[in-house]
Amino acid sequence: LVSKPVLDMVRADAEKIDVGKQRCNHTLPQQKINDMLVTLAKQGKRVLRLKGGDPFIFGRGGEELDQLAEAGIPFQVVPGITAASGCASYAGIPLTHRDYSQSVKFITGHLKNNTCELPWDEFVHLNQTLVFYMGLTGLPLISEQLIQHGMSVDMPVALISKGTTPEQKVVTGTLMTISGLVASADISAPTLIIIGEVVKLREKLNWLE
Amino acid sequence: LVSKPVLDMVRADAEKIDVGKQRCNHTLPQQKINDMLVTLAKQGKRVLRLKGGDPFIFGRGGEELDQLAEAGIPFQVVPGITAASGCASYAGIPLTHRDYSQSVKFITGHLKNNTCELPWDEFVHLNQTLVFYMGLTGLPLISEQLIQHGMSVDMPVALISKGTTPEQKVVTGTLMTISGLVASADISAPTLIIIGEVVKLREKLNWLE
Repeated sequence: LVSKPVLDMVRADAEKIDVGKQRCNHTLPQQKINDMLVTLAKQGKRVLRLKGGDPFIFGRGGEELDQLAEAGIPFQVVPGITAASGCASYAGIPLTHRDYSQSVKFITGHLKNNTCELPWDEFVHLNQTLVFYMGLTGLPLISEQLIQHGMSVDMPVALISKGTTPEQKVVTGTLMTISGLVASADISAPTLIIIGEVVKLREKLNWLE
Repeated sequence: LVSKPVLDMVRADAEKIDVGKQRCNHTLPQQKINDMLVTLAKQGKRVLRLKGGDPFIFGRGGEELDQLAEAGIPFQVVPGITAASGCASYAGIPLTHRDYSQSVKFITGHLKNNTCELPWDEFVHLNQTLVFYMGLTGLPLISEQLIQHGMSVDMPVALISKGTTPEQKVVTGTLMTISGLVASADISAPTLIIIGEVVKLREKLNWLE
């Protein structure tokens, strides 16, 4: 998730370890990453854990630091631009707006066992924006559940693929149409889904394309 | 909200205009700012609108751009680190965590006429983190309403004043105690309020102090 121009800024003599995770193979690698941070630090090394986005928003930063704290290893945290902010800016979709949305909610779309264990009732409230991180696989289920729980079938939805990169693609539609539109577009992860009236503002504010 | 070291990076021959807003005097200045952006751009100037945080999360960026779009003025948007990410990092409070919170919601705490027109029912759901922007004045009301709507009186709360700056102050308590604790501390705006089980992680992860 970290681009080459950013990696090129790392000092030349640093040892680089790629701990990139595959979407369907999460659990073991995360524990291994936590252990590796502790092990390397205990060897006296100065360790930088570089992440895309913000470490404290679906970034597992809390878990990694928890283990460092347990091991008595000092650390610092540098905040980052979370995917929702980056994608929203480059897609021309304000996440909040006085006229349309007074709150914004970030949810992980990485649904456990593809089930519907989310508080769907909560999500259908007006004047808020919903942002699903990693929701591509779950998109048909997410749309279906939101409609079933009372959200309008016409609610605008945007799916942003590889947001903020030169390969960014944005597909917009409604709760009813988005799954079909995405299926016929050539879309790949990572993706971010924005649901709410603010998506309509993209018609005016899409400055990138 | 933008610090001097950042302002010092602005090119020396740029004309700087301070449009900083007072908390209780919002409406007119915002329209004036929108107009000024259009006027200056129409004079052929290259205009940078510099904001603290992210322009699309309670940043009024959408409104400013709306007016630029209406006037046919081209623009770009650069995302920023929103206050929730910055304050969370420097207070040692992960906004999401596998064990405590699978979603995070950003809400403006700048309550209209100090009334309770917020969907309080929604906020009391488990396993989510609530972040109120600009909630210092509304804090007693926010705590009271959340308790009335069923949130535990023991729910951990953190109030972060001047977060990410050298003057950062963090006060932690519970829904029941926080208003009293804040009143007796020397706290000033801007503030951010984080409510949720994740606040407890600060005991371990507070790396700054």
